[in-house]
Amino acid sequence: MKCTRCREPAEVKLRAHNSAFCRACFLFFFQRRVARAIEHERMFDTSSRVLVAVSGGKDSLALWEVLANDGYQTVGFHLALGIGAYSERSRARTEAFAAARGLELHVRALADESLSIPDVMGATRRPACAACGTIKRHYFDAAALEHGCDVIATGHNLDDEAARLLGNVLHWQTDHLARQKPVMQPRHEKFVRKVKPLYLTSEFETATYAFMRGIDYVVEECPNAVGATQLTYKSVLDRLEDVSPGTKAGFVRDFVARASDAFAPKPAEGAGDVAAIGTCGGCGMPSFGTLCSFCSLRAEVDRKLAKRSQTASAAPATEA
Amino acid sequence: MKCTRCREPAEVKLRAHNSAFCRACFLFFFQRRVARAIEHERMFDTSSRVLVAVSGGKDSLALWEVLANDGYQTVGFHLALGIGAYSERSRARTEAFAAARGLELHVRALADESLSIPDVMGATRRPACAACGTIKRHYFDAAALEHGCDVIATGHNLDDEAARLLGNVLHWQTDHLARQKPVMQPRHEKFVRKVKPLYLTSEFETATYAFMRGIDYVVEECPNAVGATQLTYKSVLDRLEDVSPGTKAGFVRDFVARASDAFAPKPAEGAGDVAAIGTCGGCGMPSFGTLCSFCSLRAEVDRKLAKRSQTASAAPATEA
Repeated sequence: MKCTRCREPAEVKLRAHNSAFCRACFLFFFQRRVARAIEHERMFDTSSRVLVAVSGGKDSLALWEVLANDGYQTVGFHLALGIGAYSERSRARTEAFAAARGLELHVRALADESLSIPDVMGATRRPACAACGTIKRHYFDAAALEHGCDVIATGHNLDDEAARLLGNVLHWQTDHLARQKPVMQPRHEKFVRKVKPLYLTSEFETATYAFMRGIDYVVEECPNAVGATQLTYKSVLDRLEDVSPGTKAGFVRDFVARASDAFAPKPAEGAGDVAAIGTCGGCGMPSFGTLCSFCSLRAEVDRKLAKRSQTASAAPATEA
Repeated sequence: MKCTRCREPAEVKLRAHNSAFCRACFLFFFQRRVARAIEHERMFDTSSRVLVAVSGGKDSLALWEVLANDGYQTVGFHLALGIGAYSERSRARTEAFAAARGLELHVRALADESLSIPDVMGATRRPACAACGTIKRHYFDAAALEHGCDVIATGHNLDDEAARLLGNVLHWQTDHLARQKPVMQPRHEKFVRKVKPLYLTSEFETATYAFMRGIDYVVEECPNAVGATQLTYKSVLDRLEDVSPGTKAGFVRDFVARASDAFAPKPAEGAGDVAAIGTCGGCGMPSFGTLCSFCSLRAEVDRKLAKRSQTASAAPATEA
């Protein structure tokens, strides 16, 4: 098997691209692919300050490295979720990665705010991933504002996007479909654009990139992400990809190009939404209600924890 | 396992409906389900004359029997495709079915018009299923007109519709998505409405109905329908259905309810289309061009066959 680009012996085969690459050409191909997604979708340019949300996994670390190497101004932001050893390893890998490359990294730990994911799970009946999503969105938005960033980049890859799209399509979640884009424009001046530069880059490709570049990332999945459904979607998409290479990329790319607009809210609805956005009484960020969804969650957790500590302090008295 | 409806021993389990039925209750359930699809989607009523397109397979024969038993006015129409023994068996089963029930059946044989599917496949490079589709559409439309029918009903079942929808979605074929409905309104006065009363009834359910009712149908698939892709879609959907029963029905039903309209042509486009319809110079049916797609196909086949018979008659002369 020879490299499609230079005819030297190839190290990796990409059926979806009907190509094979040696190490140097794969790295070139990977970086160019990310760069093209950024340019084609007008995600940002070298004058932008990009907040890269880094979890410590292969996707976000690969993304951060590519952006930094391509001369973009990046600010790393890691939210330490407080999920035991998994979160400790994730933070350690992220910090080591940034230090080795001299990259600017900011870390915020949920445990410091009594809001670690285990705390939240113990205090609310919401599914862990839903609560975690709400919390991440809040801290990412707040970090972009705090660090003067124009855009937030996340490491969602093609497999993530295809599985999410399949789930949204199987249930025709038209409101979710309207929001599944590689570039989400902000709906308020305190928010910034959110972009997914890896949305056409497969998990296999980011893993290959991380391996070739010697990136030391957290391999394990989040222990809360049992995600049976999402895994079924991924395996079904793998089957389709196997029969017809390129299926996932076509599915996501053509959705964005041809179908996404069909689900966009009507101009009247959209305008109504923006006008209805007020300010959260808790954190001061934009909100539809008196409290934003993050502050509602935080209030819920605080109430439960307060109640529990009351019960705990009352209990010994009764026993005595 | 007891019947969900009458608590007698059940004979069939339907995971998608979280139900099990004895024979009598399954037949009741099946008929009611078809009747509800017809009523809910306003497909037709007892004053309509329904042309039932019957292939001799389980779906179309089950459909025809249910419609006839429910008191709808039906006219059976069978198009004999001329695909060897398969087509002979299909015609024989259809005729026997109609005769045993005293139902009105009209048969048209493509071989009588030098247009059997093998003839067409020999004369054109179009895929067999595409050519067959064009031919069927023409003869179904013509038969509805000839026999004074208001509506054409086909036996497409849930598995067919879900697989087709998945294929259309994976490639975001927005024009096909716009046309994938259980009720297609005619775009010209010479056309009639086309409906799919079994669009929410699974293949397993129609097979069970046919078995329980002793319907003698053609079990084999069309030999041309290699349809690897369609089969992959069906197997992938079976997998999703297995993990989450009801997935197929939700996928198709919610598409119709929530998403289908998003792909409808804009009012301006729609109006333009209708105005642009003229009359086919060949068959007199409505057409966008000077010849409709059926007459173009027929002309192509005629030219090829004429050329071949010229060559054949010229050949001996050269040899002599």
